[in-house]
Amino acid sequence: MQIPKGLEPMYPSTADALQAERSRAKFDVSEMHKFIVDAGTRSRTAKVLKVLEAEPETFNLRDIYFYSRTERMEHALKMGKRLIELMQEGKLTNDEVSWADTILDTMGPYALHRSMFLPTLESQANEEQRELFLKPALKYEILGCYAQTEIGHGSNVQGLETTCTFVPETGEFEVHSPSIRASKWWIGSLGVTATHAMVMAQLIVNGKNYGPNPVVVPIRSTETHKPLPGVTVGDLGPKFGFNAMDNGFLLLDHVRVPRINLMQRYINVSRDGKVSRPANVDPKVAYGTMVYVRTQIVRNMSQVLAKATTIALRYTSQRRQFSGKSDNPQPNGLESPVLDYGMVQYRLIPLLAQNFAMFATSQAFARHYEQCMDQLNAGNFGPLKELHATACGLKRWTSDVAIRGIDTCRHVCGGHGFSSFSGLNDFYGNSYPNIIWEGDNYVLSQQVGRFLLTQVRALRSGKPVADNQTTQYLRRHLTNGRLETVPGPAFIGKSVASLAADTDAQLDLLSYRAAAMASELVDRMDEHGQTWNQSLVAMQRLSDAHSDYIVANYFRQHLATLPTDSPILPVLRKIAALNFLYVLEQNPGDLFRLPGRAAFSTKQIVEIEQLLAKLIEEVRDQAIPLVESFGVSDLKLNSALGRSDGQVYDNYLKWAMEEPINREGTGDKIREEWFQKYYKPFLQPTKSQAKL
Amino acid sequence: MQIPKGLEPMYPSTADALQAERSRAKFDVSEMHKFIVDAGTRSRTAKVLKVLEAEPETFNLRDIYFYSRTERMEHALKMGKRLIELMQEGKLTNDEVSWADTILDTMGPYALHRSMFLPTLESQANEEQRELFLKPALKYEILGCYAQTEIGHGSNVQGLETTCTFVPETGEFEVHSPSIRASKWWIGSLGVTATHAMVMAQLIVNGKNYGPNPVVVPIRSTETHKPLPGVTVGDLGPKFGFNAMDNGFLLLDHVRVPRINLMQRYINVSRDGKVSRPANVDPKVAYGTMVYVRTQIVRNMSQVLAKATTIALRYTSQRRQFSGKSDNPQPNGLESPVLDYGMVQYRLIPLLAQNFAMFATSQAFARHYEQCMDQLNAGNFGPLKELHATACGLKRWTSDVAIRGIDTCRHVCGGHGFSSFSGLNDFYGNSYPNIIWEGDNYVLSQQVGRFLLTQVRALRSGKPVADNQTTQYLRRHLTNGRLETVPGPAFIGKSVASLAADTDAQLDLLSYRAAAMASELVDRMDEHGQTWNQSLVAMQRLSDAHSDYIVANYFRQHLATLPTDSPILPVLRKIAALNFLYVLEQNPGDLFRLPGRAAFSTKQIVEIEQLLAKLIEEVRDQAIPLVESFGVSDLKLNSALGRSDGQVYDNYLKWAMEEPINREGTGDKIREEWFQKYYKPFLQPTKSQAKL
Ligand SMILES: Cc1cc2nc3c(=O)[nH]c(=O)nc-3n(C[C@H](O)[C@H](O)[C@H](O)COP(=O)(O)OP(=O)(O)OC[C@H]3O[C@@H](n4cnc5c(N)ncnc54)[C@H](O)[C@@H]3O)c2cc1C
Ligand SMILES: Cc1cc2nc3c(=O)[nH]c(=O)nc-3n(C[C@H](O)[C@H](O)[C@H](O)COP(=O)(O)OP(=O)(O)OC[C@H]3O[C@@H](n4cnc5c(N)ncnc54)[C@H](O)[C@@H]3O)c2cc1C
Repeated sequence: MQIPKGLEPMYPSTADALQAERSRAKFDVSEMHKFIVDAGTRSRTAKVLKVLEAEPETFNLRDIYFYSRTERMEHALKMGKRLIELMQEGKLTNDEVSWADTILDTMGPYALHRSMFLPTLESQANEEQRELFLKPALKYEILGCYAQTEIGHGSNVQGLETTCTFVPETGEFEVHSPSIRASKWWIGSLGVTATHAMVMAQLIVNGKNYGPNPVVVPIRSTETHKPLPGVTVGDLGPKFGFNAMDNGFLLLDHVRVPRINLMQRYINVSRDGKVSRPANVDPKVAYGTMVYVRTQIVRNMSQVLAKATTIALRYTSQRRQFSGKSDNPQPNGLESPVLDYGMVQYRLIPLLAQNFAMFATSQAFARHYEQCMDQLNAGNFGPLKELHATACGLKRWTSDVAIRGIDTCRHVCGGHGFSSFSGLNDFYGNSYPNIIWEGDNYVLSQQVGRFLLTQVRALRSGKPVADNQTTQYLRRHLTNGRLETVPGPAFIGKSVASLAADTDAQLDLLSYRAAAMASELVDRMDEHGQTWNQSLVAMQRLSDAHSDYIVANYFRQHLATLPTDSPILPVLRKIAALNFLYVLEQNPGDLFRLPGRAAFSTKQIVEIEQLLAKLIEEVRDQAIPLVESFGVSDLKLNSALGRSDGQVYDNYLKWAMEEPINREGTGDKIREEWFQKYYKPFLQPTKSQAKL
Repeated sequence: MQIPKGLEPMYPSTADALQAERSRAKFDVSEMHKFIVDAGTRSRTAKVLKVLEAEPETFNLRDIYFYSRTERMEHALKMGKRLIELMQEGKLTNDEVSWADTILDTMGPYALHRSMFLPTLESQANEEQRELFLKPALKYEILGCYAQTEIGHGSNVQGLETTCTFVPETGEFEVHSPSIRASKWWIGSLGVTATHAMVMAQLIVNGKNYGPNPVVVPIRSTETHKPLPGVTVGDLGPKFGFNAMDNGFLLLDHVRVPRINLMQRYINVSRDGKVSRPANVDPKVAYGTMVYVRTQIVRNMSQVLAKATTIALRYTSQRRQFSGKSDNPQPNGLESPVLDYGMVQYRLIPLLAQNFAMFATSQAFARHYEQCMDQLNAGNFGPLKELHATACGLKRWTSDVAIRGIDTCRHVCGGHGFSSFSGLNDFYGNSYPNIIWEGDNYVLSQQVGRFLLTQVRALRSGKPVADNQTTQYLRRHLTNGRLETVPGPAFIGKSVASLAADTDAQLDLLSYRAAAMASELVDRMDEHGQTWNQSLVAMQRLSDAHSDYIVANYFRQHLATLPTDSPILPVLRKIAALNFLYVLEQNPGDLFRLPGRAAFSTKQIVEIEQLLAKLIEEVRDQAIPLVESFGVSDLKLNSALGRSDGQVYDNYLKWAMEEPINREGTGDKIREEWFQKYYKPFLQPTKSQAKL
């Protein structure tokens, strides 16, 4: 198939439009890149991209949208194998290989080996077990997965039904799935690939249940790769996304494993069935790992959203539709870029600003995390609870914003957003589980809520309360854990414009909102008999209000790392103000109902809307330079709409022509077959055609 | 692969749980079904289901989630062909075949022939053209599509670039795509199937442009099915959904067609190039068709959402997680169904209530549509504008609620929502374009807004204003088009509880909110210089507020068709009150800022939240009987989670086992190949395994 010859060039050109957007930049894009993307990510990305681009035959995503599920899996295996080789050749580290998966948006069958099997061994194996399992695992001599979730239990980990029973006669464990409901489910890398599973099972010794503990169960022979006796294992089929991954199920029928296979860092079962817990390790350390996984999600979500905003902003700045409808009319009656329409701006610009906040937050949060880990390693577990609550709240906040954000970006592209070549669809499916795994977002909000309620209650009853960013604001706004409206918080009496210009006042208002919500919820529960279950909706809003504050706080902290005369500061301050106003504009009800003199008036709400609209227009002007400072590569975008060269329509058409059903040879054959089978029986030469 | 023998049965059983939910019913489910689903749909569904179920070999969706794109297309062609045969055998009508597509959630390659090609011929062809095109098309002797959108233009139809130029020498038209940007794009049934395209092209006669007009262009030979000379045509590749459909592209290189191919009902070009418009036809009639398509979308959206709510409510009433956390503890420490958790209820029960409102609305709106059409056919075009605005608003409202609703239903199922076997994923993709086509939802809100602004302005300037449900409320609340707060609307001073019990007051409040927003927007635009572009965000909210009222109004109208002592009325009134409170609870900002004495206080907002929570709990009690009154068949659900027999886990596992990669023979072969190629180079027998 050929594009007809003699077609006119398209005027105005999309590539020129993109260049024009770039030339508007009022700041240095590479300076901004250095500030907004952390150094580790920058160098990792540069190194990994170089390696991937050097082998375009292997690391090629061009055909990926055409693949069947099986082809996707094989493509991932092929790339995955090469990545392991590159690691063994010393060209990439373990971390860099995971980063390659992110750039390629392809979680292949080895991903869980790296992201869950190895880390669990690192944190839960004793020395002997490191030798036995970790060493070969690091060399991919065994391939692992992490089998916690069952078909019947996910959020309720305590309710897992797989058992690991000590057998006194032989000194082994017998791992068993009593019913279908105990079948392990969703386990990444299990469906086809893994030889070993880290199985979470109820540890039962002499009839006593010690709760879920991890035990290594060999499931496939390393020699024949066939399932071992007693093991029923398979892939759990097609999914909304993540289809290169072999998420699997596993039923164990009284499978015996040696005693050494139970992870022994925190618990030990002796040959004669004595259960002990080593004195020198505090099990709270394990919390640190959970928090770590969530810091990674927070970082990844900024990257995920950056891909979507890059595509949508580039495309809407080039896509033209209608003339004379925007406030920024084009010369010669040309149509306006749809990004000039107020509604398109409203959908995209606050998302861009949130994306900046996410990048900044993930850096500030990572620093906070490191500090806490240092303390933990020094035996001070004080910061752990707040760190954990913050991580839960941020995991929820960032993944919610990112996943809803991809959807917004798809829809804002109109029909073309719906094409796989937009780059936003498989990607959406692949990113979606972030709102489910590592704690379903709705379940996480309860953890955040519980933490806040506990702090407020402690303040009320005069119990000791740790000192951290959360309790600091609770103490500031609450007197003995209660809202006192006189004299009231510092933001009262300030105009909306001055609030928008004053970061302290912004943080004051955002934290006051969260403190007021927390205090009100404690009132309802402790004084008006509202049950836990009746409080879940409020708790979820409280969690988000708290995270709105935390994100703003981290954004400010990260801005504070810049010299005060930095030329990129002005636009960043604008973005911070925009984020602040957007939170307010999205939650007018919260503002109207702030207690006493803090309550907002309609006039103020209207001012918020108007100032927000003004800032959106101003940031729109810099939107392309801003989004390009995230530095998302064309390889990662893999999009016809979001290309850095701005050649949208011609490449989109060329890509479509490669659809298998269009191809000469194979496609011709299928189409001919369908014609014979399905249309020919009906079709008749028509009079109209006869005339041709 | 075999499920291990000797597994214990699962206790408590999901099937028992579903039965228990059913037995709670306090009303007659079949009575409710008769009321909420219109008679036409009921009988159509019953008839079509019977026909489909009689041929399970052909109409089988069990394997559909495993198919590659090409397999999906062929499966659709196979079912499509059989449906045409059934039609020709007189067993199904044209309408029923479209309904079969809906039940099968498979828009195959013949769908656009039926839904767009035939209707355009019906409405735009003259007698000679009916003979020439419509007659063979009805017999599928030619296969058509509707080619309006281009790669460069969708929303802006006037901006289409394909030309249809009169050639005086031969009396033909030359249809031409000047550049790649003029390539037709997204055209359903074009990619592989259609022999004819109804092409929207700029009609140019003697250098004068008469705007976009439809012309029939033969594109593939009916004898060989090969593209005709000058035609470049193909499938546009994989998409977020709708993958059984061959959406295609089309470039025409100076293709000549006979003069008769230009649709002539509204415009005529004579042999000597005279352009005329027939006197006896009012082009406004064409509007009626657009409205009709949107009434169909409104109806379909209730069905779409019903599939999602059925799956999610059935599943969450059987899924158990945690014990002792809900207010409704289970006997013997059993875990609670997650539907007992306040947050799960909050996500699902208002959606169920909105689903009821959608079913009722689509019936009341259809009646309204019929009345307007009668008037139109009698030459009275008065009701047309309001009908059009209502259709735009409802298309947006229902498709937004339904598409967001499917996503909510998927996420509320936790991890299992992400499996294709949930039934919610392909389905989501297939339903998604409803927010894009027939007017992108954000563009539609401008049409609604424009209509309302025009009415308010007319009232202000004393111009005549038609009498309809919209202007009635504007007149009631506005004095000379302006808000007068004294004496103020009737709902003022009523408690939240009494509002919830009083439909008149509810409609009064909902319409007052919309009238206030419309009036405020006119003030801003006409008195404070706010531009159209700066008003788009407000216009979108206005459109939704207006539709909130329209939906409530239609719901009431439909309830009024029941006898006042009907035993299903009490629960329906509860649902109506829930919908009302949900609108309020979702938009507290709107209530706080109502003018003057109408403004809500924090106390009232809290009352709204509490009463809503109470109603949600009450409706949750009846949730399964309620959702089952929609009568969605197992065939349409095609879901492991939402089955009517409640056998969730065992069927889910069995379905997964059928994943191609698990299969004996074919699957074994692929796995063995992958083992040899990808893992064997690394794997080593391990010490731990050696011990086994
Ligand atoms: C693509 C993918 C990959 C995965 N990979 C792995 C893996 O490698 N290894 C592994 O072990 N697991 C894995 N998982 C499983 C994942 O961790 C679980 O799906 C997740 O923990 C949620 O549990 P669930 O699916 O059982 O949801 P459920 O707990 O059943 O939740 C269902 C619904 O109930 C709600 N709910 C539950 N409890 C409460 C409560 N107390 N209050 C209010 N609402 C509640 C939830 O919000 C949700 O809406 C994966 C999942 C996916 C989708
Ligand atoms: C699956 C599918 C099937 C289809 N089938 C057919 C078919 O059979 N035949 C056919 O002819 N077409 C078909 N279409 C095309 C469909 O009608 C168009 O996609 C739709 O009209 C939107 O136009 P667009 O894609 O050009 O979006 P655009 O108009 O480019 O919109 C892009 C963005 O700009 C915004 N925007 C545009 N104008 C304005 C404005 N004035 N103010 C504010 N915002 C604005 C939109 O809201 C959107 O966010 C199909 C589309 C899909 C996805």
